[in-house]
Amino acid sequence: MNFQVLSQDGGGNARTGRIQTSRGAIDTPIFMPVGTAGSVKSLSPDELETLGATIILGNTYHLCLRPGDERVARLGGLHKFMGWNHPILTDSGGFQVFSLARINKIEEQGVQFQSHIDGSRRLLSPEIAVGIQKNLGSDIMMSFDECTPYPVTYEYATESAKRTIRWAKRSREASKGTEQALFGIVQGSIFPDLREMCLEELVQIGFDGYAIGSLSVGESKEQMMEIMNRIAPRLPADAPRYVMGVGTPGDLVEGVRAGVDMFDCVMPTRNARNGTLFTSRGTLNIKNSACSDDQSPIDPDCGCYTCRRFSRAYLRHLYMCRELLSYRLNSIHNLYFYLDLMAQMRAAITRGDFEHWRQGFYAGMGSELSI
Amino acid sequence: MNFQVLSQDGGGNARTGRIQTSRGAIDTPIFMPVGTAGSVKSLSPDELETLGATIILGNTYHLCLRPGDERVARLGGLHKFMGWNHPILTDSGGFQVFSLARINKIEEQGVQFQSHIDGSRRLLSPEIAVGIQKNLGSDIMMSFDECTPYPVTYEYATESAKRTIRWAKRSREASKGTEQALFGIVQGSIFPDLREMCLEELVQIGFDGYAIGSLSVGESKEQMMEIMNRIAPRLPADAPRYVMGVGTPGDLVEGVRAGVDMFDCVMPTRNARNGTLFTSRGTLNIKNSACSDDQSPIDPDCGCYTCRRFSRAYLRHLYMCRELLSYRLNSIHNLYFYLDLMAQMRAAITRGDFEHWRQGFYAGMGSELSI
Repeated sequence: MNFQVLSQDGGGNARTGRIQTSRGAIDTPIFMPVGTAGSVKSLSPDELETLGATIILGNTYHLCLRPGDERVARLGGLHKFMGWNHPILTDSGGFQVFSLARINKIEEQGVQFQSHIDGSRRLLSPEIAVGIQKNLGSDIMMSFDECTPYPVTYEYATESAKRTIRWAKRSREASKGTEQALFGIVQGSIFPDLREMCLEELVQIGFDGYAIGSLSVGESKEQMMEIMNRIAPRLPADAPRYVMGVGTPGDLVEGVRAGVDMFDCVMPTRNARNGTLFTSRGTLNIKNSACSDDQSPIDPDCGCYTCRRFSRAYLRHLYMCRELLSYRLNSIHNLYFYLDLMAQMRAAITRGDFEHWRQGFYAGMGSELSI
Repeated sequence: MNFQVLSQDGGGNARTGRIQTSRGAIDTPIFMPVGTAGSVKSLSPDELETLGATIILGNTYHLCLRPGDERVARLGGLHKFMGWNHPILTDSGGFQVFSLARINKIEEQGVQFQSHIDGSRRLLSPEIAVGIQKNLGSDIMMSFDECTPYPVTYEYATESAKRTIRWAKRSREASKGTEQALFGIVQGSIFPDLREMCLEELVQIGFDGYAIGSLSVGESKEQMMEIMNRIAPRLPADAPRYVMGVGTPGDLVEGVRAGVDMFDCVMPTRNARNGTLFTSRGTLNIKNSACSDDQSPIDPDCGCYTCRRFSRAYLRHLYMCRELLSYRLNSIHNLYFYLDLMAQMRAAITRGDFEHWRQGFYAGMGSELSI
């Protein structure tokens, strides 16, 4: 994996770049659709390509439980398994093991947990998490971390960040002998000094990219922005910077402004399935009865398949009937919105016009940071 | 609407033909995917086109309840509403009102029932059913009939068939002033003389096509075949013949052999969602653990998107995870199988080779009539 910064916004930290992988190039800043269990829910690989996705995310936790990473390896790896021939980033399972599974024990060795699917007892450790990601064959692996809960004491956050650093070292060690890239994850909760300490230690270890973890886990928007704005610009400039699990369109704009290159979030696809649709003028709840006789598309300014072909009235009908097509057409729209938003930001940065573009974005959104 | 028989199988009743509508031609014999509530579950209009569907079915009962036929009319008709620009056949609501709703009263006027969605009291009559279908703007409407239950006494079947005939007359009357075609429906349960009586009366009234209703409602396969083999060839030869709600691949083959031109059934799409997949060698249950590590496609002889791109192992995984993509990829495969089966039969009839083709079909299927 190779990363190059292509342009930098005049006054700020926003930048464009290109990650080159053996499976293709990724223009940054980029949003990665989440394909939890080997599928971006409801969408085919062809649709993802048409939407302009250049990299998707797969979940180590889900895939190791079902269908099993060894099975995926036997079947030729995750790309072949799911029919996606472009880059894949896999997370380390850290976040899910703390949010979905029943934790039995956090030890130096790793985390003992019970599967949320069948209750079976499992261990996830740096070596195991990297081993799973090797089996999956992702282009970018994430080192195993402890997703620090919120709220948390300074003492526990320190302990947790230090453990994450030790686990990062072991992850790096375990990654030897593969050409898959490995990113480190900065922890430290809402405490800037812990975040900076963690960041420095990770840079000492040396990774192909650096991520900020445990944001959007319950802290306030202001706390999240404070950490993102402070830490993102301090991440090494010559490696991709990735904010994990974030966020709203406004969060993405602020992240890019802080110098972030990569994002992932279930929001566009999950909200789609709940009938909440993103537009350049704010969100639209397709359940709203005002949509019943509305012949207009979700967003008249949108060029996605859903907006080119279907009315709000039809989409509302599909949603009310819980038709399977509803989830899909809504997901197409929301992912198009997110990916197009990133393309707009790349273009604005390249033009040297990012701040002006950003003002226009908030004006369109009704000046709401979070929509 | 215009219908032309193009070729007739030498020894038997099987035939090819073409139904010409203002929205395009339909080569017969044809299978119509079922788009109950304005959507063939999980599939986009583009996918249906790619699958080779030339006509789909919409349900009067479902659409009049939700989103409402007057709303569909205001929005420009069902074709525009759902983004399908090819022919649509709508049923009369007769079958659903007897199978889904709570019937309050069957009277000469029509059927009083309660909506299965919100319990609201409704009336469906020949005039109302045709009025709804006019609002939907389908290319082919069905006259309102009583779906005779099974088992049934000869006395009730007689009464029911006679009522269906009187309702057919009123449906024909109500259809005046539209260019939408109207088909009559032959009732009479498993009693050949009642079926023939009904058929003769319908021909007296005069319809653009003739259907056989209330098959596959609980009677034995032998009883169904007896009625289909006896009645189908007696339906007017110069009009399309349609067997409603039938059936398995074997049923389609036998129907075509009896001279039937049109079929519809939820089986390919419903079975797809249940993980039961049709192949040229019988059915495959994708849940089967033998599929877990199987890199082969559902059917090596199949040319559908699902078989060209995905393994049984992946499809089993999607099914076990209840991923939305599972329903869709399985539906694509099963509909492709059904539509390709019809294309094979059209080609065999055109070649004058239908009986030979039919033997090959059963040999492939393990000589099972019903798979």
